[in-house]
Amino acid sequence: MTTIDLNCDLGEGFGAWQMGNDAAMIELASSVNIACGFHAGDADIMRATVALAKAGGVSIGAHPGYRDLHGFGRRPVAGLSAAEIENLVAYQIGALQAVASLAGHKVTHVKAHGALSNVACEDDMTANAIAAAIKAVDRNLIFVVLANSRLVKAGEAAGLPLAHEVFADRAYEDDATLVSRKKPGAVLHDPSKIAERVVRMVEDGAVVSVTGKLIKMRTDTVCIHGDTPGAVEIARGVRQALKAAGIAVAPFAGA
Amino acid sequence: MTTIDLNCDLGEGFGAWQMGNDAAMIELASSVNIACGFHAGDADIMRATVALAKAGGVSIGAHPGYRDLHGFGRRPVAGLSAAEIENLVAYQIGALQAVASLAGHKVTHVKAHGALSNVACEDDMTANAIAAAIKAVDRNLIFVVLANSRLVKAGEAAGLPLAHEVFADRAYEDDATLVSRKKPGAVLHDPSKIAERVVRMVEDGAVVSVTGKLIKMRTDTVCIHGDTPGAVEIARGVRQALKAAGIAVAPFAGA
Amino acid sequence: MTTIDLNCDLGEGFGAWQMGNDAAMIELASSVNIACGFHAGDADIMRATVALAKAGGVSIGAHPGYRDLHGFGRRPVAGLSAAEIENLVAYQIGALQAVASLAGHKVTHVKAHGALSNVACEDDMTANAIAAAIKAVDRNLIFVVLANSRLVKAGEAAGLPLAHEVFADRAYEDDATLVSRKKPGAVLHDPSKIAERVVRMVEDGAVVSVTGKLIKMRTDTVCIHGDTPGAVEIARGVRQALKAAGIAVAPFAGA
Amino acid sequence: MTTIDLNCDLGEGFGAWQMGNDAAMIELASSVNIACGFHAGDADIMRATVALAKAGGVSIGAHPGYRDLHGFGRRPVAGLSAAEIENLVAYQIGALQAVASLAGHKVTHVKAHGALSNVACEDDMTANAIAAAIKAVDRNLIFVVLANSRLVKAGEAAGLPLAHEVFADRAYEDDATLVSRKKPGAVLHDPSKIAERVVRMVEDGAVVSVTGKLIKMRTDTVCIHGDTPGAVEIARGVRQALKAAGIAVAPFAGA
Repeated sequence: MTTIDLNCDLGEGFGAWQMGNDAAMIELASSVNIACGFHAGDADIMRATVALAKAGGVSIGAHPGYRDLHGFGRRPVAGLSAAEIENLVAYQIGALQAVASLAGHKVTHVKAHGALSNVACEDDMTANAIAAAIKAVDRNLIFVVLANSRLVKAGEAAGLPLAHEVFADRAYEDDATLVSRKKPGAVLHDPSKIAERVVRMVEDGAVVSVTGKLIKMRTDTVCIHGDTPGAVEIARGVRQALKAAGIAVAPFAGA
Repeated sequence: MTTIDLNCDLGEGFGAWQMGNDAAMIELASSVNIACGFHAGDADIMRATVALAKAGGVSIGAHPGYRDLHGFGRRPVAGLSAAEIENLVAYQIGALQAVASLAGHKVTHVKAHGALSNVACEDDMTANAIAAAIKAVDRNLIFVVLANSRLVKAGEAAGLPLAHEVFADRAYEDDATLVSRKKPGAVLHDPSKIAERVVRMVEDGAVVSVTGKLIKMRTDTVCIHGDTPGAVEIARGVRQALKAAGIAVAPFAGA
Repeated sequence: MTTIDLNCDLGEGFGAWQMGNDAAMIELASSVNIACGFHAGDADIMRATVALAKAGGVSIGAHPGYRDLHGFGRRPVAGLSAAEIENLVAYQIGALQAVASLAGHKVTHVKAHGALSNVACEDDMTANAIAAAIKAVDRNLIFVVLANSRLVKAGEAAGLPLAHEVFADRAYEDDATLVSRKKPGAVLHDPSKIAERVVRMVEDGAVVSVTGKLIKMRTDTVCIHGDTPGAVEIARGVRQALKAAGIAVAPFAGA
Repeated sequence: MTTIDLNCDLGEGFGAWQMGNDAAMIELASSVNIACGFHAGDADIMRATVALAKAGGVSIGAHPGYRDLHGFGRRPVAGLSAAEIENLVAYQIGALQAVASLAGHKVTHVKAHGALSNVACEDDMTANAIAAAIKAVDRNLIFVVLANSRLVKAGEAAGLPLAHEVFADRAYEDDATLVSRKKPGAVLHDPSKIAERVVRMVEDGAVVSVTGKLIKMRTDTVCIHGDTPGAVEIARGVRQALKAAGIAVAPFAGA
């Protein structure tokens, strides 16, 4: 039976503040990326989120971001050296590993968050630093890499198990990169079309670009968002369409 | 040959700020407690400190504190639950473990910092929470416990390997507790007397109290400070006196 | 016409995180206490909240708390000197004054937040330090003081204009202090009883204690909460009952 | 008698951490820029620094930076809107004004710090936002602007009193901009040459560029650094050379 992973970001509150609907999303995802305290999350929220994931039979990953609580990790932090990126990524992975041990669960993947991820997708130094940090901490951790980004090369060069990630609701250029959010049509909104698209990605290993071209795209995991009510609907639609197509939703193994 | 460990706190800067004389202290200690980012330290300083320790052949431990950068972890944080203490201790240990892996070294002990330690020495809930966190992360980590404090009981109950710690420069009451810093004579200043005291602690397993009573005191590690020039002199004196007495300085093994 | 002020806390988000229902509460209050960045709030949220208050014709006050974003200012911070309390209170007032000038509004009162307020209600040093900070910044700022607490004495000694505050939904002891939250009946829940109570407080200048005794209680402002849906209902009920009794809701003047 | 201002950054510690030699620098400067808590400084250090300045008869200014304690405000923070820059600048000015009132002194100027200043020197949006914040808080505050940068235009457009600033130890291009630090010769090290240069700047209102061209340069204040022992020597040399040339060192008035 064909399987696919659905991943989403969880545990993005801080102290007394909450963010998103973790209880709803945990039902729809097969793996979750947990904020580690630099852009969101704290040790208490991390533990509660790990416990939620364990109870839901969902695999967990570290979701390291820049040190930027105020900007939620969405602002690029300029001027960091490769070593500094390695350090902040390793720090966050280790923190989650230890907190996870309190909840009896185990970290099995890593996915970079927000601006750190965006920068790394286009900057080899940053991508390689993230990969190096993961490798140093545990070379068996699965590195979730945006399909066709610099992260793929960095992960391959480091010899890490990879999970190629696609966005269900984003349009792709002919060269398999994401259409910039500044362009019209960059983000898809029709739940049925998005669901159909995901099924084809999994079945065909390909996606239709904005110009109508069929482009190959390895898909190990699909990113689903939970920030808006519409997004939860879309995630539910994707999940149902996959079921109807006989595709199981299950955590990636990494390859 | 009899051996004793000398431990000191290191890596207590933050960002552009420095604290203490790490280069001098690493020469005198056999194990160092590294700040983990909550009261001091950051991922970059942690890595540099781990590398310094590795180069110096010194064992490393996590030095978790309350979340209190502004107060350097010296202000008690009221109202934390046992789970919240477990979480923040585990988080910090894991962070150091991961950063240490980048520098090719391994965390082998844990010692609580500042107000967290002071509170735990008198509060079973806090002491047990620290021990529980250590145990969950790695039951082989050595728990450095102030001799005759609640930490000892907590560590024993958790079944952790323990290193009993004494302060070279502090006076003791008849009941083997530290004389309060508010009382005169609480802190010793004469380097030769301090050095002699440490040698006797190691040789006799005992210390003379303020009233002149000989009290039994298991001593696995002696805490040395590096915050002031005088403190470095004291540490040097202790080191020399131990050598003269034929006692080797080496990392504790935990028992 | 008799008037009374209704005050509530606003602007308690941070960065990407939101807290409470500011839009609903601004309709019910005549003065708002704005978080100043130490326990909640940031410069952007402060400006948006000031603009909201200005548009709603509501007076604004600084709501300084301990430096404790993670604990939302609800954890007592031990060991601060009087000068340190003065400094953090002044800092926060000044920050809001300057941000308010960007939104064309003016800070007219100060009310301490959370643990800082709780400590000050029982500790003269803290209460006096808060009053001293207000006085140094602007001796015309109205100091909102919990009726019958140490804050009253501190404010009087400093010669500040005061607004005596009562809680609509809290029971009082015979000595006019709040019944501890640990005791049953400390918090009232029946909206109609709470509304009736507030009307009597304003009309009679007194409140009935838990033992049925009528105790004098100067009431310049009533604290209303917006954290829960029930609390908004209670605030609406208070507002309607005041209207029915011919009591106008308007910002306090301080006296 | 001709006068010139010498300004330097002060109060750049945080909590238990210190930075620089404030006591030495206060003797050499006539105005100081005080960190306001975002990149360095805290309410306690601010008050102590204000008191030091008052005792030394030195004028004080706010030194606002990006929210970046870990990077000391040296990392550009991307993606801030004009309003967000206004907010953070106003917040910091107001905070210092209020703390200064506790020490009986008054803020009379504002100078942007680190990356915020560097960005503003080349980016009109940022420069205008800083000027707008100053103007909203108090239109009589003197805006310290790097000579020939975008800050000058922004300050003029806002109608603020300006103090044109030059760096004693930096080489200038023919177009009156600073030689990039990446180029050789960007920073001058010879104390006597630096001192002579400053005297000429004040006497002639001009500086000799790297190609030997005499370029006009309005000079109201000279920035002196205190981070290194060499820098203190340079500052002393400048001070002595000015005295020898009959030029008085005194706070700028703004024009």
